Amino acid sequence: MSLPAEFHEIAARVNNWGRWGQDDEIGTLNLINDEAVREAADTVRSGLRVPLALELRQDGVQTGVIPGRVNPLHVMVQVNQELFGPDTVATSDDAVTLGLQAGTHWDALTHASHSGRIYNGRPASTVTAHGRSAFSGIHTVRHVAGRGVLLDVAAAKGVDRLPGDHAVTPEDLDEAAEFGRVTVRAGDLVLVRTGQIRAYLAGDRHGYAFPSPGLSVRTPEWFHARDVAAVANDTLTFEIFPPEIDGLWMPVHALDLVEMGMLQGQNWNLEELSTTCAQEGRYAFLLTATPEPFVGGTGAPVAPVALL
Amino acid sequence: MSLPAEFHEIAARVNNWGRWGQDDEIGTLNLINDEAVREAADTVRSGLRVPLALELRQDGVQTGVIPGRVNPLHVMVQVNQELFGPDTVATSDDAVTLGLQAGTHWDALTHASHSGRIYNGRPASTVTAHGRSAFSGIHTVRHVAGRGVLLDVAAAKGVDRLPGDHAVTPEDLDEAAEFGRVTVRAGDLVLVRTGQIRAYLAGDRHGYAFPSPGLSVRTPEWFHARDVAAVANDTLTFEIFPPEIDGLWMPVHALDLVEMGMLQGQNWNLEELSTTCAQEGRYAFLLTATPEPFVGGTGAPVAPVALL
Amino acid sequence: MSLPAEFHEIAARVNNWGRWGQDDEIGTLNLINDEAVREAADTVRSGLRVPLALELRQDGVQTGVIPGRVNPLHVMVQVNQELFGPDTVATSDDAVTLGLQAGTHWDALTHASHSGRIYNGRPASTVTAHGRSAFSGIHTVRHVAGRGVLLDVAAAKGVDRLPGDHAVTPEDLDEAAEFGRVTVRAGDLVLVRTGQIRAYLAGDRHGYAFPSPGLSVRTPEWFHARDVAAVANDTLTFEIFPPEIDGLWMPVHALDLVEMGMLQGQNWNLEELSTTCAQEGRYAFLLTATPEPFVGGTGAPVAPVALL
Amino acid sequence: MSLPAEFHEIAARVNNWGRWGQDDEIGTLNLINDEAVREAADTVRSGLRVPLALELRQDGVQTGVIPGRVNPLHVMVQVNQELFGPDTVATSDDAVTLGLQAGTHWDALTHASHSGRIYNGRPASTVTAHGRSAFSGIHTVRHVAGRGVLLDVAAAKGVDRLPGDHAVTPEDLDEAAEFGRVTVRAGDLVLVRTGQIRAYLAGDRHGYAFPSPGLSVRTPEWFHARDVAAVANDTLTFEIFPPEIDGLWMPVHALDLVEMGMLQGQNWNLEELSTTCAQEGRYAFLLTATPEPFVGGTGAPVAPVALL
Repeated sequence: MSLPAEFHEIAARVNNWGRWGQDDEIGTLNLINDEAVREAADTVRSGLRVPLALELRQDGVQTGVIPGRVNPLHVMVQVNQELFGPDTVATSDDAVTLGLQAGTHWDALTHASHSGRIYNGRPASTVTAHGRSAFSGIHTVRHVAGRGVLLDVAAAKGVDRLPGDHAVTPEDLDEAAEFGRVTVRAGDLVLVRTGQIRAYLAGDRHGYAFPSPGLSVRTPEWFHARDVAAVANDTLTFEIFPPEIDGLWMPVHALDLVEMGMLQGQNWNLEELSTTCAQEGRYAFLLTATPEPFVGGTGAPVAPVALL
Repeated sequence: MSLPAEFHEIAARVNNWGRWGQDDEIGTLNLINDEAVREAADTVRSGLRVPLALELRQDGVQTGVIPGRVNPLHVMVQVNQELFGPDTVATSDDAVTLGLQAGTHWDALTHASHSGRIYNGRPASTVTAHGRSAFSGIHTVRHVAGRGVLLDVAAAKGVDRLPGDHAVTPEDLDEAAEFGRVTVRAGDLVLVRTGQIRAYLAGDRHGYAFPSPGLSVRTPEWFHARDVAAVANDTLTFEIFPPEIDGLWMPVHALDLVEMGMLQGQNWNLEELSTTCAQEGRYAFLLTATPEPFVGGTGAPVAPVALL
Repeated sequence: MSLPAEFHEIAARVNNWGRWGQDDEIGTLNLINDEAVREAADTVRSGLRVPLALELRQDGVQTGVIPGRVNPLHVMVQVNQELFGPDTVATSDDAVTLGLQAGTHWDALTHASHSGRIYNGRPASTVTAHGRSAFSGIHTVRHVAGRGVLLDVAAAKGVDRLPGDHAVTPEDLDEAAEFGRVTVRAGDLVLVRTGQIRAYLAGDRHGYAFPSPGLSVRTPEWFHARDVAAVANDTLTFEIFPPEIDGLWMPVHALDLVEMGMLQGQNWNLEELSTTCAQEGRYAFLLTATPEPFVGGTGAPVAPVALL
Repeated sequence: MSLPAEFHEIAARVNNWGRWGQDDEIGTLNLINDEAVREAADTVRSGLRVPLALELRQDGVQTGVIPGRVNPLHVMVQVNQELFGPDTVATSDDAVTLGLQAGTHWDALTHASHSGRIYNGRPASTVTAHGRSAFSGIHTVRHVAGRGVLLDVAAAKGVDRLPGDHAVTPEDLDEAAEFGRVTVRAGDLVLVRTGQIRAYLAGDRHGYAFPSPGLSVRTPEWFHARDVAAVANDTLTFEIFPPEIDGLWMPVHALDLVEMGMLQGQNWNLEELSTTCAQEGRYAFLLTATPEPFVGGTGAPVAPVALL
């Protein structure tokens, strides 16, 4: 069963291959320029800092359904060890094994492929088993910092959490922008809140995973029209899951990552930010969210912070 | 061989136990307040972004000398896998095993102990083998963002890299502040550049590790006098290694982490920042450097970014 | 709530501390002598080989209930990589992260402690966070090979699988020995079949884990009286779980490992062996079951084979 | 640079594809039948047990030269933890990350491919990045037990250790068989001792790795003519390294694993066995060496034991 015509039509409309040259590896992040960062810094008025990463822990959001995407196994390799003899200064050290996409993370552009291609038309086979993406590995991003905008879809609709079968549409995004009295513009880092992560925070990992509200297959065109730099939300799957169109699995991944070359973020905890934006009456802020630079990673953990 | 009287005298002068209450877990990070963040945001004039993390790779800075502190083993767990059937959207996923202090990182306050105590006078035994610091785990930090100041000691002295036996003294810090025409003040995040990381970047891992220039046992008093929030540099050991005083190993770790409760950062790549600050003629900037929130971690990777 | 008097009375009766000297690290494995191995070899008549290890896989027997005891995460680090240039011989390599007691394994004597002591009266504190048991680590075992005896308790009772609340008693062991027309003697490696592992093999991991039939607190005396060298069975918990005596958790672990110094094996797949023994009409065989020699391990994977 | 004609000529002579059917996954292990196991058991006369595995430790034989083949990182996940409350029985648990071929191991038949093929003519592409060999994964072996034969090439030549540039030839194998007064026959598990591992045991890991004596490209025909079931030795590379024929890398791997379908073992410690065989005057014994059954593994750790 190949991808339907409808998918290919949207793909053609949002495709950015070649837009920043044949050698480009970072896609829409090119849209964040120095001016955008200066303007983002200007949004900091109160000096508040809001962290957006979930705690990394063995009972994290992964349930085992996604093969190999393991929650962190955090272990001590030294505990108060006096390396230099008795009664000297002691140190403790630890190590961890985790899936790079296990917690709050960015997908690299190489996380998805379709029809044998990744972003910018490169062969999908440039992602290899040897722990490397030859192109567009997450480390090529270097830095993610700019104006963040919270589109609080749940709050705009007056609910804590969208229903599990709710596809977030372009109309929902417009509604949330209006709710926050904010205009999305070129180079913005857009955070879309569904409230779904409240299930996890309340202890229901399986309910968090599935079914999940998420972005509709119609949203990539909305982001493309506004030249958004990257999008993150508070779900495991990013897009609505199970999907809107029967048999068309993960179309938003393919459109955002492969066609547009736009980073996607998942498992971002937007609860505290939602409260803070409401209290401040401001939905734009300085967002810094540079992923851990694993060379060739198809994703990486990130500890984003919003400064208001 | 117990710790010498000289150590205990300095310890008494820089001790912050109880300063922010008996329950405090974050020490000098309490010194970053909203006003400091607002002022930090005001330092962003050009909109430049400078990443400070080393790439995370299997041939990273660790040489095997520190037991258990392993370089990242980055592996693919899916490569272009069509999870939902042939000709569907494919995904790639990866996982990693690494020491939490293997690359560019913050030490948590629990990374060091002496005389059976960690920061705030708690028993060192609250750090246990079960992968948890009961107190002051790196996740308690929540966010690190504020005014960053580069003290470019190497540049101030007109060298690319300090000699391996150079202990960075308070006088060196004063000289570098004057060189950068910047005054260190309460709540600052101070970055001290020795140039030592150039050895690693040139391919000499062993030369990077040892011998290494680094902070003198006299610097904690300098930081304490200025109420600095945290300090990072571009070495593996942070302090000069081998140590200045024969038989007194890692005194700076004990003074900074245990006595003052001040985060230390290591393996920060300050080369690009050095160039940028010189070009801009400015040595203060907005620095965001929130560590990955591993629950109970005695350290964690961080991907810091300076915004100028 | 300390350990009850009843526990201490049994402990006194089965205690082997000092029996093989103050320096001994391997306990009842001392009971396997050369003659026992010669006699074991004589039991090989048909030349049949029966493996007793479960496959090691990510969906293994661990459910996440035991902290840190993770199922194998098996990953490729090279796939058909031509390390020496195009059109040369290619190789594939893999790596794994797993709990040493995640699958079919032996507990080392250091796996359990009580009242601050491990086997032979050594302080429990000789097991440290640095990945080492100073004494009695699993590598000290060197080899496990001798006469194996299957006590097929389930078959003796005419059931596929004992009920979840069935404590296997000394009387059950006698019954199974009689069923197999075999006499347990000094130096034997005893395998006790409950059939519980059929739950896991049928896909019910949670039902396998709990509740589980297993050895009664009365069995250590039976093993002690016969000078058995080691005991393994086909359950996750080895002993009945939840326990027979309210509030007395894991008494069999404490008696076998700490007091007697007798290795315990868990998650052994005895199904094929049960069938083979029944077909051959013989319940004694040559068993080789040397654990992977992880230095200082408190347990280790083992791939046992019975030769009949 | 493709494989030379000489290679293809030998390949044609030793090829076993289809010999045990199109569905066969285990190659020459088919040659171990029940009778061979009975005869192997008959070789046990003294009851001696000799372990052949190296200790698994962080300072193991790997030097970092082979990407991803990491020495064991052994960590504690629980240390004397009283899971069920104070003064109860405590347990210690550990976990490990390691390359499956890091220590004493068997290569699976899928470890090597050439010209796009693995054993039995299957496509090399059946080995995938998802942690699976679809065919001939190490778990398909089920058990390895039979008659072991030590060909002590070093002892036959009167040296402790062969020189680093010594290719072990068919003539050397004949000489060692004569030295041990043993005839290699169908189904035998052959151990070839070079003494090279003495370098590692003496602390010289780099000297152990390279240059290394090992099997000549002429030996596969010798093993094929005798219908040997599997071969292991005491080197890192198995075959002589650097290779005998300029530009022909790892031909023995390709001939043994791909063409013949014969397991290879590496890093086996044959020192104690050498001494024991000399003392007993016997070079044949019962060998059990079942690898840990990692599903789809292209190799696996093994803890072999020789019984004499």
